[in-house]
Amino acid sequence: MNEPVLYYTPGTCALSELICLEWIGEPYRLCRVARDERASEAFLALNPHGSVPVMRFGDRVMAENLALLLRLADTNPSAKLAPPAGSPERDELHFWLSYIGSRFHVAFYPVFKASRYSDREDLAEHLKQQALLQVGKELAFLNERFTGRQHAVGDSRTVVDAYFSATGRWGRRFFDYPAVSPEFDRYLKGLEADPGVARALKIEAGEIEGPDGALLGHVALA
Amino acid sequence: MNEPVLYYTPGTCALSELICLEWIGEPYRLCRVARDERASEAFLALNPHGSVPVMRFGDRVMAENLALLLRLADTNPSAKLAPPAGSPERDELHFWLSYIGSRFHVAFYPVFKASRYSDREDLAEHLKQQALLQVGKELAFLNERFTGRQHAVGDSRTVVDAYFSATGRWGRRFFDYPAVSPEFDRYLKGLEADPGVARALKIEAGEIEGPDGALLGHVALA
Repeated sequence: MNEPVLYYTPGTCALSELICLEWIGEPYRLCRVARDERASEAFLALNPHGSVPVMRFGDRVMAENLALLLRLADTNPSAKLAPPAGSPERDELHFWLSYIGSRFHVAFYPVFKASRYSDREDLAEHLKQQALLQVGKELAFLNERFTGRQHAVGDSRTVVDAYFSATGRWGRRFFDYPAVSPEFDRYLKGLEADPGVARALKIEAGEIEGPDGALLGHVALA
Repeated sequence: MNEPVLYYTPGTCALSELICLEWIGEPYRLCRVARDERASEAFLALNPHGSVPVMRFGDRVMAENLALLLRLADTNPSAKLAPPAGSPERDELHFWLSYIGSRFHVAFYPVFKASRYSDREDLAEHLKQQALLQVGKELAFLNERFTGRQHAVGDSRTVVDAYFSATGRWGRRFFDYPAVSPEFDRYLKGLEADPGVARALKIEAGEIEGPDGALLGHVALA
């Protein structure tokens, strides 16, 4: 089995890689990992942090979203998912990957897992509400930066758009996007109309199990 | 003024860029920004998130540590601060940059700024102690990964070593490194013996203000 395998959990940032794999169009396989399976011995052997995405490329197993996105972009140049190294556009790409990984995604941590910040269950709701203030600030920042933009970097899709497709929606449960971040909302909706994004969402929802297109099918964790 | 300018605050991850600038050896300038100045209009005009590092390259102003480190590496190839794009070693480099930016550094957030997570001052110490549990887990992970290693990637220094030189020490105030993470401790001490790291620490401490070596001197924020 030489095709790359993506280990993912629906609703996580691993959707970024799924979108990129659809855009690349080369054969790949998936392994769906339930949230509680991420604490299993089999999964921790792949990634001791117990998080997705993880990818297997032949004998190599890799973790960390940003590292995977850059690898997918740089080893599939014909898919044009990142501008050339050293260009100002490449700087922009790195900026957004860093921003999402260390600010935007991180702002949601206490929203989805307050127990990471306190073992006191009575504080969970308080920490969640405080974290949503941070998320709200980022939605305001993004609204300004995405005014009039169809893509995060330049005029065509990159791995950053895949990363935002996966993570940008997380705030919709808590914020009225068209009201608080209309330009970012418009940008996200534009991405959802992309056939690769739409297909990745269907795969994640279990509506496509494969083989179908470049998706060869799902494999078991162990 | 065509030399790059690094905006930094002592004790922050901006030390990473200062080390890289020393390793590169091309003329540069610094702008020391006190913590409270990061909320000033002049600084927020450079970076609306109010964080360092920020760098100015001619007319361009850039933020986000990872983006800056990759730019410094890729635009100064003779300094060999990153393996070639597409190589397995480059994947490793991206893994560590992502790991530090989204896990290791982030684990410290409530330790240094609990107010980001709760406006209740009575919770600050609780949140700090809980965060230190996360930091401790990462120190254990790092101890395993750095066993026997002199550098994070391959056999020579990269931007990751600069990033760890800046951030790795943050836990020393709370943990007895030689006891809880002896291999990571050994790795960090090895880095501190590097002349570029040692010089950057002196510059940060105000012992060298420039012009001296590649450091042309300090400039004012506004």
